[in-house]
Amino acid sequence: MSRFWSPIVERLVPYTPGEQPRDQKFIKLNTNENPYGPSPRALDAIHDAARDDLRLYPDPSAIDLRQAIASTFELGTDHIFVGNGSDDVLAHAFNAFFTGKQPILFADVTYSFYRTYCELYAIQHHKIPLTDAFEYDICDYQVPCGGVVIANPNAPTGVAMTLDHIEQILIQHPDVVVIIDEAYVDFGADSAVELVSRHENLVVVQTFSKSRSLAGLRVGFAIAQPHLIEGLQRVKDSFNSYPLGRLALEGARASWADRNWFDQTRRQIMADRDRTAEVLQSQGFQVLPSSTNFVFAFHDTLPAEKLKSDLRTRGILVRHFNHPRINNWLRISIGTSQDCDTLLEATSSIIADTKT
Amino acid sequence: MSRFWSPIVERLVPYTPGEQPRDQKFIKLNTNENPYGPSPRALDAIHDAARDDLRLYPDPSAIDLRQAIASTFELGTDHIFVGNGSDDVLAHAFNAFFTGKQPILFADVTYSFYRTYCELYAIQHHKIPLTDAFEYDICDYQVPCGGVVIANPNAPTGVAMTLDHIEQILIQHPDVVVIIDEAYVDFGADSAVELVSRHENLVVVQTFSKSRSLAGLRVGFAIAQPHLIEGLQRVKDSFNSYPLGRLALEGARASWADRNWFDQTRRQIMADRDRTAEVLQSQGFQVLPSSTNFVFAFHDTLPAEKLKSDLRTRGILVRHFNHPRINNWLRISIGTSQDCDTLLEATSSIIADTKT
Repeated sequence: MSRFWSPIVERLVPYTPGEQPRDQKFIKLNTNENPYGPSPRALDAIHDAARDDLRLYPDPSAIDLRQAIASTFELGTDHIFVGNGSDDVLAHAFNAFFTGKQPILFADVTYSFYRTYCELYAIQHHKIPLTDAFEYDICDYQVPCGGVVIANPNAPTGVAMTLDHIEQILIQHPDVVVIIDEAYVDFGADSAVELVSRHENLVVVQTFSKSRSLAGLRVGFAIAQPHLIEGLQRVKDSFNSYPLGRLALEGARASWADRNWFDQTRRQIMADRDRTAEVLQSQGFQVLPSSTNFVFAFHDTLPAEKLKSDLRTRGILVRHFNHPRINNWLRISIGTSQDCDTLLEATSSIIADTKT
Repeated sequence: MSRFWSPIVERLVPYTPGEQPRDQKFIKLNTNENPYGPSPRALDAIHDAARDDLRLYPDPSAIDLRQAIASTFELGTDHIFVGNGSDDVLAHAFNAFFTGKQPILFADVTYSFYRTYCELYAIQHHKIPLTDAFEYDICDYQVPCGGVVIANPNAPTGVAMTLDHIEQILIQHPDVVVIIDEAYVDFGADSAVELVSRHENLVVVQTFSKSRSLAGLRVGFAIAQPHLIEGLQRVKDSFNSYPLGRLALEGARASWADRNWFDQTRRQIMADRDRTAEVLQSQGFQVLPSSTNFVFAFHDTLPAEKLKSDLRTRGILVRHFNHPRINNWLRISIGTSQDCDTLLEATSSIIADTKT
């Protein structure tokens, strides 16, 4: 607290990211990172771009990267906005589209950064409880509002919403922007990108951090009709002309082009996820159906806090949120097949220790 | 214009960055980039960091980079904030420290992003005219205000303020934050960093984009007392946990450590700047005394618009601002010694053509 802070600073409750240990001795299943490295073509492109040209500003319009993304979706570049990670994109979207006059809607259990953005921009919000099964019930969204934000699949639960339901929400709220945050969509949910041309109020946000293994590069993007992309650009150009450096632009573009690597790694992760969920269930865990690169689970007899701490002792980091409704749950990222085996041996051993 | 935009989007007047041509045929003297590449040690560090680890999030606290900067200034890491270019740092500083209750002060001719931030955050501002010689007159700053922003040296004029004058402004306004934007300080002005420990209201902002040749990497930083750094961190952690990727963190750290490269290149630029200013004066230009890597000049008989256009025809880009008081001036970045020769031949030839 300082007398020099503007009133906004005091009321902020910053988002807390998962721990990034400075040594490498842990198996990190706590921040939903991809266990496989980025596409070798992305690394090559970064090596090529790490040269004298770094003295020059990057392209402020990021046109080559936007073109690459646009052409995959068969859209124009005026449908694509890129930012310094999807958090940067989401922050600008909240500022560009939510006026604060009516509350925006999002789930009671979802990405906690949404509430933080509301505090940052003084946007009213109303939390819609997920069902007891941690699913979205779209009937609950039939209320007047200033906007809607849906993580699909949801985090930290991993549960997906169908495109049909997303379209119903878009139709229920034709006069406000609906943001679909698809950070994890490539691990098994249907993307709402195909709805963009039909719905002028839809903004889809995706990231290179998860399915493209580039959390360390910081690239995210939005897909929407040009009038919304222009709103994002105006906010971005009033904040930072060059959010993406030359290495990020080139690395992301090469990564995007390597469809094989993308498909091969995400399929492996999905297979290991399903196997991990099954074994955890056999060990007495309740596991939500996951369309992501993590599972959300609790154990019938072992408290989450204890499990998290025992796993850490065994060199495995997982994420625990001390939030209402989910404080007995753990979010466990899917690592390599070997990481999954190590995790499952550890949970089995912790459970056995408790019984003796 | 879209009915989905929040009111803020309509009122924004985004900053316009200098042209970034997509082909390489121009000598770019329009965006104050460093003509020499980054330190080879920075490029090596980036090559080393472009590996599988990019799948992992970067350190959200950027502790190693902050430590490197802090130790040079003999300060603690709690005195250092890093961001995605100094524009990102400035944006967060405006949001963290300026309440909008009283207008903040900055010069009528200065970095035009300051006005843009005021629009973005609904901060009132009052422009203080520079003197006829485009110098700051600190007597004009003796008015009640919500904060002060001084670019030192100023841009696009290149003129520096003395530390003694900066300290007088800090003392005049003990209850509001004074931001000293030192984007160009390494080319000949005195840094206010040495005042940080004495003045609890001082925030100094610097960048890796100019004197460290890394405009393409996007790294800037602030130096201030811990209570102000904490305010910046709170805003940053409510916006984007990871503004700097792994490549930026490692590249910047290695660049910072290479003091020899930094000194050698900036000295060459300062020598070429002084020589260029002298020759331009002999060609009939009025040139302001520059403490930066650019000169700000106008010609006694040739309009700036025509000069800019004729230089472009000859393959040289310079910057012209169509703003009050400076619309007959050009801002010309200092390139390599060879670039300067080419520029001076071109101006000489344009002047000769006009006389015939």
